[in-house]
Amino acid sequence: MVSKKAKESYSSVTEMVLPNDTNVLNNMMGGRIMHLMDIAGAIAAQRHSNRTVVTASVDNISFKRPIYLGNVITINAQVTRAFSTSMEVYIKVITENIPKKIKNKSHEAFYTFVGVNDQGKPVKIPELIPETERELELFKSAQQRRDLRLLLDGRIKPEDASSIKSLFDGKD
Amino acid sequence: MVSKKAKESYSSVTEMVLPNDTNVLNNMMGGRIMHLMDIAGAIAAQRHSNRTVVTASVDNISFKRPIYLGNVITINAQVTRAFSTSMEVYIKVITENIPKKIKNKSHEAFYTFVGVNDQGKPVKIPELIPETERELELFKSAQQRRDLRLLLDGRIKPEDASSIKSLFDGKD
Amino acid sequence: MVSKKAKESYSSVTEMVLPNDTNVLNNMMGGRIMHLMDIAGAIAAQRHSNRTVVTASVDNISFKRPIYLGNVITINAQVTRAFSTSMEVYIKVITENIPKKIKNKSHEAFYTFVGVNDQGKPVKIPELIPETERELELFKSAQQRRDLRLLLDGRIKPEDASSIKSLFDGKD
Amino acid sequence: MVSKKAKESYSSVTEMVLPNDTNVLNNMMGGRIMHLMDIAGAIAAQRHSNRTVVTASVDNISFKRPIYLGNVITINAQVTRAFSTSMEVYIKVITENIPKKIKNKSHEAFYTFVGVNDQGKPVKIPELIPETERELELFKSAQQRRDLRLLLDGRIKPEDASSIKSLFDGKD
Amino acid sequence: MVSKKAKESYSSVTEMVLPNDTNVLNNMMGGRIMHLMDIAGAIAAQRHSNRTVVTASVDNISFKRPIYLGNVITINAQVTRAFSTSMEVYIKVITENIPKKIKNKSHEAFYTFVGVNDQGKPVKIPELIPETERELELFKSAQQRRDLRLLLDGRIKPEDASSIKSLFDGKD
Amino acid sequence: MVSKKAKESYSSVTEMVLPNDTNVLNNMMGGRIMHLMDIAGAIAAQRHSNRTVVTASVDNISFKRPIYLGNVITINAQVTRAFSTSMEVYIKVITENIPKKIKNKSHEAFYTFVGVNDQGKPVKIPELIPETERELELFKSAQQRRDLRLLLDGRIKPEDASSIKSLFDGKD
Repeated sequence: MVSKKAKESYSSVTEMVLPNDTNVLNNMMGGRIMHLMDIAGAIAAQRHSNRTVVTASVDNISFKRPIYLGNVITINAQVTRAFSTSMEVYIKVITENIPKKIKNKSHEAFYTFVGVNDQGKPVKIPELIPETERELELFKSAQQRRDLRLLLDGRIKPEDASSIKSLFDGKD
Repeated sequence: MVSKKAKESYSSVTEMVLPNDTNVLNNMMGGRIMHLMDIAGAIAAQRHSNRTVVTASVDNISFKRPIYLGNVITINAQVTRAFSTSMEVYIKVITENIPKKIKNKSHEAFYTFVGVNDQGKPVKIPELIPETERELELFKSAQQRRDLRLLLDGRIKPEDASSIKSLFDGKD
Repeated sequence: MVSKKAKESYSSVTEMVLPNDTNVLNNMMGGRIMHLMDIAGAIAAQRHSNRTVVTASVDNISFKRPIYLGNVITINAQVTRAFSTSMEVYIKVITENIPKKIKNKSHEAFYTFVGVNDQGKPVKIPELIPETERELELFKSAQQRRDLRLLLDGRIKPEDASSIKSLFDGKD
Repeated sequence: MVSKKAKESYSSVTEMVLPNDTNVLNNMMGGRIMHLMDIAGAIAAQRHSNRTVVTASVDNISFKRPIYLGNVITINAQVTRAFSTSMEVYIKVITENIPKKIKNKSHEAFYTFVGVNDQGKPVKIPELIPETERELELFKSAQQRRDLRLLLDGRIKPEDASSIKSLFDGKD
Repeated sequence: MVSKKAKESYSSVTEMVLPNDTNVLNNMMGGRIMHLMDIAGAIAAQRHSNRTVVTASVDNISFKRPIYLGNVITINAQVTRAFSTSMEVYIKVITENIPKKIKNKSHEAFYTFVGVNDQGKPVKIPELIPETERELELFKSAQQRRDLRLLLDGRIKPEDASSIKSLFDGKD
Repeated sequence: MVSKKAKESYSSVTEMVLPNDTNVLNNMMGGRIMHLMDIAGAIAAQRHSNRTVVTASVDNISFKRPIYLGNVITINAQVTRAFSTSMEVYIKVITENIPKKIKNKSHEAFYTFVGVNDQGKPVKIPELIPETERELELFKSAQQRRDLRLLLDGRIKPEDASSIKSLFDGKD
């Protein structure tokens, strides 16, 4: 299996916020945003693995600012690292009020996806090659996020999560 | 403002998994699940605060098992603790293949919501009174999850997140 | 085939009323409500029969009060009686304006569903055991509603619908 | 207010049955059909009253035959009679499998709608003039259906529902 | 294969414009209108060919006037001519503001569809017999529109598109 | 009003083809594609004009190849030229079957949009500055397409459409 470059997985999903995406205050609902992020992330994961993919996990997401009816929302996604059958995808959300010329980074998140075969069973996926400084940084820190994910999910013990000790020692 | 009991916020959303909720393997897409979880959580948060609410954050979610077309998905949500203007909601997802008499806890998550007024500004919400042992446990651990959330979001420093030290010391 | 208790079929569907559910007055459209009632009823009928089910009929429904954008609508459904291959389901709709602390029973209805196999053919379903007084009452009156249904549908003659005579004699 | 002819309200809604309209057997769900019937009926009621309309009630509906994915469904609706602020609409559903040249009347129903003003309050609507034999027949029998509807809804007493006695005497 | 009359393909789709069909000005979005026109046209093409059909092309469409939330939109479609495996369909869009008694022809268009078998391969379809003067006119001019379509798509050369010369000589 | 560069309007919309986008052959319906093209084009037109925009017209579209369930569809849109209150947008559709590593240009089209104010009235928009060779070519040919559009819509006469004569003389 040939390794693939990080940028080959880059995907970007753009949508206009429509009435059914919003609550009574004309704010886009968080659930709808996470839905679009999942689609963008899945396309990036598909591009890296050339497989059908299923969502395995989502890391903490903090929604920073409201998104309104009529806004344009752009979701950029790129795989940061591949682990055997799973991939971590970095997802960034940008919102625009185009008539008012306002453009903001809204929030970001890490999703993980698993490549599966036609029976839905996990399959090995290609390794990822980071190239830019930012890609290298995300590749490196992916291990820490993975350990935290497994720890929070109760799948590894604190003593086996050495990579994240520093996170809480304030020395990272 | 009168405090409210945890159970007063209990909400349950049930849905049948329809074709558009699924991918090419007839698996329910993770984004669609998070969307339904957000709606269930928002209803619970509304019930506690009697306010319009907006999603502030979502904690790590691990999807444990596939959910299929035709399954019935039940999402139970209850507020665990109130913090000034925000509420943490515990959300549990159960899936059923009723004809095959299979019922599973699928996964769980913590979402936080903020109560807002008609201008979308945060407002103070009632305190929450836990009653059962489980409610007390969730109430107590809510502080730790909150610190972790703020730490991961870069809003507090490791040294101010003492409540979560134990999490990584393996002594919790 | 083992009989099942009425309460085993209990199902509850909760939804937030979104823009596309409403007309130009921000009133939820009757057709959308009936759609949600059908889903809730189908889940209850599935729970009783452990079969895929199809809607066979709907009894008279009177919509008592408007339901508005942003309201939370809860639909409770429970099988009242099983007849060979069909089940009658009692469905009650409750609406809430949570910020205004208003909660009302909106309306109720009886739907019937038929359990079917993978070829869509009707199959025998378990008998239903009513337990509470209310369940017993609904179980008993189900025969009358069934006769009325068949009569209105032209499938039985007035003289064979003795159970509903009383309904029109004012002696029931 | 000028009376209007029955045929002026005639409306016809045609749809192709899409995946999300169907259950796991590729059968169109009853709730979705009732939703489309409501839209067709509302258009007919709007055409008669030139008002925004809200659904007031639905009479018994028996679904006679399954409707499948890919079928074309046609819903014809026409007002049968106007009563002060409400209208009864006769709705007929026809389904076609066009490639197989199969066309069937599926089922029929009576819905009632109320004309409302911009505040959602009921307003007086024009009288309806039936012209054809079929229109006259539906106009006449509308009183009986109305009495049955009010009786089943507990709004009139059996002794005041003389028009429907015959229905149960087998002499109609 | 027996030829079919033009009017046998006549189809009419009616919809109420709902919130999600509209932009921030409550105007129905052009894309949504084209989507409904495609469905109406496909039903007409199915009726002529008794085949599953796929959209092959759309001719120039000019949107003449805005369509608003709450309007009723009626789309009439009829096949104008059959060419071996493809059909041209004339589609006319009418919009109504029923409470205000306003009814306008909005715009019109020509779509072409191809009849396909279960493998999605084009199949021969019946010839079309125009009867009325209008049908004859549309039948005759279909050749010219077809040549223009092929020319604009680069599939024929100007010198082979003699039928459309007149269009640009101002002598048609 | 400051002129803007063509590339400032570039927009790209990506979607996964879901069940409800498809017909019984699992082919994406043409109407759904045109709907997505309209959204992508509207975002590009908004970016150029910083205005709410409405669709004014669509030029001939030929659908070259089927798009299937599960495919990823990417729609790139860029304004080619501005005319007083309207803009022409070039829209290109690319489809991918990522697991099979198939990527194709599907088809292309020109849409025109009009910038409007809050009352929906057309407003003057900035001029567009083409930079690359391709942008210059599209800018230049936009006049010809515009003349053809107006001619086909009956708004100019053949003798006033000199720019398109060459199109039919085979000398362009």
